[in-house]
Amino acid sequence: MYNETLAWIENALDSLHETGKMGSLHWRATYTEEDHKALKLLEQWMRGKDLEVFYDDIGNLFGKIEGEQDKIVLTGSHRDTVKNGGKYDGALGIICAIAAAGTLYEEFGKPKKSVEVVAFCEEEGSRFLSGYLGSRYFVGQLSDDILLERDANGITLTEAIRHAGFSGKRAQKSLQMQKVERFIELHIEQGGVLEQSGEQVGLVTSIVGLLIGKITIDGHQNHAGTTPMHLRKDPVTRAAQFITEMNQWAMAYNEAVTCTFGEIQVFPNKSNVIPGSVSMSFDIRSTSPAILQEARMRIKNLQQQDGFRYTLEFAAPNAPAQMDEDGLKLLEEAAKKLHLSYRKMHSGAGHDAEMVAQNIKTNMIFVPSVGGISHSPLEYSKMDDIGHGYLLLKEFLREIAWGHEEEKA
Amino acid sequence: MYNETLAWIENALDSLHETGKMGSLHWRATYTEEDHKALKLLEQWMRGKDLEVFYDDIGNLFGKIEGEQDKIVLTGSHRDTVKNGGKYDGALGIICAIAAAGTLYEEFGKPKKSVEVVAFCEEEGSRFLSGYLGSRYFVGQLSDDILLERDANGITLTEAIRHAGFSGKRAQKSLQMQKVERFIELHIEQGGVLEQSGEQVGLVTSIVGLLIGKITIDGHQNHAGTTPMHLRKDPVTRAAQFITEMNQWAMAYNEAVTCTFGEIQVFPNKSNVIPGSVSMSFDIRSTSPAILQEARMRIKNLQQQDGFRYTLEFAAPNAPAQMDEDGLKLLEEAAKKLHLSYRKMHSGAGHDAEMVAQNIKTNMIFVPSVGGISHSPLEYSKMDDIGHGYLLLKEFLREIAWGHEEEKA
Repeated sequence: MYNETLAWIENALDSLHETGKMGSLHWRATYTEEDHKALKLLEQWMRGKDLEVFYDDIGNLFGKIEGEQDKIVLTGSHRDTVKNGGKYDGALGIICAIAAAGTLYEEFGKPKKSVEVVAFCEEEGSRFLSGYLGSRYFVGQLSDDILLERDANGITLTEAIRHAGFSGKRAQKSLQMQKVERFIELHIEQGGVLEQSGEQVGLVTSIVGLLIGKITIDGHQNHAGTTPMHLRKDPVTRAAQFITEMNQWAMAYNEAVTCTFGEIQVFPNKSNVIPGSVSMSFDIRSTSPAILQEARMRIKNLQQQDGFRYTLEFAAPNAPAQMDEDGLKLLEEAAKKLHLSYRKMHSGAGHDAEMVAQNIKTNMIFVPSVGGISHSPLEYSKMDDIGHGYLLLKEFLREIAWGHEEEKA
Repeated sequence: MYNETLAWIENALDSLHETGKMGSLHWRATYTEEDHKALKLLEQWMRGKDLEVFYDDIGNLFGKIEGEQDKIVLTGSHRDTVKNGGKYDGALGIICAIAAAGTLYEEFGKPKKSVEVVAFCEEEGSRFLSGYLGSRYFVGQLSDDILLERDANGITLTEAIRHAGFSGKRAQKSLQMQKVERFIELHIEQGGVLEQSGEQVGLVTSIVGLLIGKITIDGHQNHAGTTPMHLRKDPVTRAAQFITEMNQWAMAYNEAVTCTFGEIQVFPNKSNVIPGSVSMSFDIRSTSPAILQEARMRIKNLQQQDGFRYTLEFAAPNAPAQMDEDGLKLLEEAAKKLHLSYRKMHSGAGHDAEMVAQNIKTNMIFVPSVGGISHSPLEYSKMDDIGHGYLLLKEFLREIAWGHEEEKA
């Protein structure tokens, strides 16, 4: 039975992956032909497992098993992929949810609470900049600004939603959401922590907040040969010093913060010219608002009277999201019952769960990623590991929807 | 008399500058229409001051005042400019040489030693990569490789030489060179040292050697959010650390070395991706072979077993050139006699004098550059400062060619 389900999951992953093929490229952006193909498959699988299929007005797909009570336990993930992405990111959480809900229904019949599987649209932001569109909509936080965002072909989000046959009409908070008691998302880790530690599943405690933006340092462009060191204002050496300091700062916090300077532009970028300016992106993530605030102050403190000119741009901050503590305890108990080794860990990547957690008790299960690789055709998780995640999700849903009495709010 | 000469120099600088106008761009590359116009002007000025005009086989232009002895004192600079360059680089050394030789001949008649003014071709390497073509040829060091270099239109140096009407035929060492006892080049400083120190002229003690090349550091490309700091191999932080260390190293040597990382490329250069690799140019200059060797070792020592992969590319090294000590003493005495404040300093930029010094006693005079700016339309030197340089060059030539007896070799 378990082996059959695992084979079904493996097969479903392959089939869903096929829908994203665009010649040699793989990309399943929302409201596209590829997305449409994926939805037809997902609907078919949901119906095959006796889930009742429906959409909301932005095109999030739901599959429902009606329970005895007017409460809903939601599970799932996003159905879109990044450009040139992999087979597991998003897809695994939907497929395992369909498998778990369907199997539980088969084993135990009608649940006490309704179980809904969701396939959110556009989480990655690979077609429209902001991302998390489906989960933002679901919690009533899709702003007008985002609806006016345009894709690379100039099509607005609103136009794309309507072209795909949805109204895009927003309720303040969607009706489903009001009845949803809990959300749980299974996802690949996308990092190498579980692989390094050897634990079988990850139980997410929080999702990092994000401080991103750009620093531009202007110095004095000059001849590399004729300008003595002490007469220079070389922005590259200033940037190097700052990167080194920030790296040391982040290293000292161990796993509590990440700090990345991934994009660097030097002007004029000639080997025999002391650069006039350097721009660099910063991407700082932590589950601690205090650490993010400290990082912000460190960046702001760059603006000293040291002869350089600093231009700082901060993107809208993204606060850390805490996962539900009761849910985490349930997951720990379930893991012990299943004899799975687990690691409580934060998520360094953003997920739909981050949006949903703003309004609903939310938890996440991580499945190890081989080599920590994601957003790449090389993205891969072993079927054994996927099986562990699936079993944990199933046990959690059983406890919540079939087992226990309604929780106190 | 002095004021008239200074006015003549100013006017000549303007006229020669005009020959390099190509619409809104200024560029006088060798063997071009612009070069041809410049040569006609220079010939005219040389003849106007009773200099006998001739060319060698690569197109270096000479203007000679025949002396009593079979010895030649050579002075001048290069006639080409960089693309979008200025009015003074190269031109000033030729024009002041014509003015000084002509005026001395007018004042003192036939010199003891012959005086030759040279207008070298293609020093900058703005048309053909290697540069120093005229002075390389002059000292018999123009290699076959260089003669095969092609300009942006695919024309080889040999073709360009012949098209301009010269044979390009190489003597092992040119005949003139064998008789040349000394060379002196007046040039703008191209840096800001004299302006900062307030001294009126620079007496060059040596021309820096050059260690240039490229360092590529390969690390592990990964997700900026999901990869904890201690699991990273981020080549940007490694590069930043190295730049910081090298900067501290160079600063500690004060003015004895410069160190520039002017060109940096990050891959894939995305804000949310830990870069997979970083490439950076290095440009290290010093008058001390030992310091350059130390820099080379520091770069080589990068290749530790630290999980990064280092690829090092070194361009052919360029050894420092020492200026002649007797000549330097003569320049100091002349400066004192003229009540000019002077600074003994090295040259951080390369010059024809660097090539010539390999075979001939060579000296250089620097005139201050306003703002230290060169290789730019903003390049500017004040006429007062130019006058000081001119007077010093004239006094040096007078001493050597009209005054003293022949020096012992």
